[in-house]
Amino acid sequence: MKKLKRSGRLVDMTYYLLQHPHQLVSLSYFSERYQSAKSSISEDLTIVKEIFESQGFGSLLTIAGASGGVKYVPTVNMEEGTELVHSLCEKLEDKERLLPGGYLYMMDILGKPQLMNEIGRLFAAVYANQHIDAVMTVAMKGIPLAYAIGSYLDVPVSIVRRDHRVTEGSMVSINYVSGSAKRIQTMSLARRSLKEGANVLIVDDFMKAGGTARGMMDLLAEFNANVVGIGVLVEAEDVEERLVDDYISIARLEKVNEKEKQVQTVPGNFLDKLKEVKGE
Amino acid sequence: MKKLKRSGRLVDMTYYLLQHPHQLVSLSYFSERYQSAKSSISEDLTIVKEIFESQGFGSLLTIAGASGGVKYVPTVNMEEGTELVHSLCEKLEDKERLLPGGYLYMMDILGKPQLMNEIGRLFAAVYANQHIDAVMTVAMKGIPLAYAIGSYLDVPVSIVRRDHRVTEGSMVSINYVSGSAKRIQTMSLARRSLKEGANVLIVDDFMKAGGTARGMMDLLAEFNANVVGIGVLVEAEDVEERLVDDYISIARLEKVNEKEKQVQTVPGNFLDKLKEVKGE
Repeated sequence: MKKLKRSGRLVDMTYYLLQHPHQLVSLSYFSERYQSAKSSISEDLTIVKEIFESQGFGSLLTIAGASGGVKYVPTVNMEEGTELVHSLCEKLEDKERLLPGGYLYMMDILGKPQLMNEIGRLFAAVYANQHIDAVMTVAMKGIPLAYAIGSYLDVPVSIVRRDHRVTEGSMVSINYVSGSAKRIQTMSLARRSLKEGANVLIVDDFMKAGGTARGMMDLLAEFNANVVGIGVLVEAEDVEERLVDDYISIARLEKVNEKEKQVQTVPGNFLDKLKEVKGE
Repeated sequence: MKKLKRSGRLVDMTYYLLQHPHQLVSLSYFSERYQSAKSSISEDLTIVKEIFESQGFGSLLTIAGASGGVKYVPTVNMEEGTELVHSLCEKLEDKERLLPGGYLYMMDILGKPQLMNEIGRLFAAVYANQHIDAVMTVAMKGIPLAYAIGSYLDVPVSIVRRDHRVTEGSMVSINYVSGSAKRIQTMSLARRSLKEGANVLIVDDFMKAGGTARGMMDLLAEFNANVVGIGVLVEAEDVEERLVDDYISIARLEKVNEKEKQVQTVPGNFLDKLKEVKGE
């Protein structure tokens, strides 16, 4: 790569860091990449850090010492987080998404990659320092959000299936009781798709009684894995008894009335958790 | 936002453009965002453009006139594309992924969000100027790649299902013959998940005879949608009769021998297509 001036380095460095979240990049790497002295690189990084942090893109951690370097940790500021949560609530209240039986059509939301990325960044901000090794979800609607989070945390995604395919190799299966319908179902995860003892973040698009999340926790126990957290996009209203207590939701349904064509939502507990993490 | 110096503007601008691919951003927007004269913004953009294009991140198109502005179009250069294709081929040749029946375990590849993003950028580069309105895939292994492409092209993803869920609303279903197993199957797409007349890119993780892709094409006909292209990560070897002709693949299996524990691959036709698009 040809020698770059500061202005060019700043553009390239920003791009590079965004493509490598949660990865330690040594000063030597940048120094060689731009054929520039480490002192210049340090000054560049100070500028990048200031903008990243003041604009709420994330933090730029500096690790000192011979094996040191810099690490970009994507986060979100309270203002942007609040705005996004409220805009999601508003989208959910569109009565056109009401389906027979009081179900909500959500694929217009789940089908937008950029929106999923934004919401993924919310969860990545809250779990940034929890040493997550993998994100786990169940096919299929949780997949887009799981990948968005995995992308920001730079960790793989494990997809639990409700069927058994020949292309998965040996699988570990459990039975679980879906909380709302009280039906016994099976879920399976390919043996090689998750490391033993991994720290796992469970993700799903929707949680009612939490039977599916409970099932995923049981499945994780078979892998001796640790559940670090549970993140859901939307949680249901009026659940008599939840099967899991500790989870983070972006939005919560308050009232879904099919007859009156009404959907009311409130923000979930995400913003409280974000505040906690930020120590604000 | 407080007034920023050039160095700060370059960092913020790079971040902003990367978050808004394929969107026209007016000079006025940046001018207000940074409280800087349009002439300064123009100079900033010249620097960003030079780096984006020389480093192969993508093009920065400048649209002149009152409603003009700048648009970031993610692409990939031949060198980076070639490297990525070959590294994928190498990964596929790992004999540990051989499963009984000659199937290949691919979830380690498909489960990596960052890798999917990189491959997504390859397809986004080839289809950048084809006015794609939506990416379509079938649940579930094509989903990660479809979202990665959709994210770079800034278009929604439509997910075809093999079952029927109450949370999808009215669905359009077709029967199709899976090319390799010759079984009749059903696939469905929610009516509201795709606009009539849309230009659609079909995406999947694996293609053997192309029965599933053929099925998706038939389904798209029900939506009066146009198939702009078909992109697959891996295509199978030795297919007697393919049901679709025009597709782009990243890698192609040459020989899969379960007994000898051998997997041989060659690059698919992707690099030829990229060369064509780039006019090189």
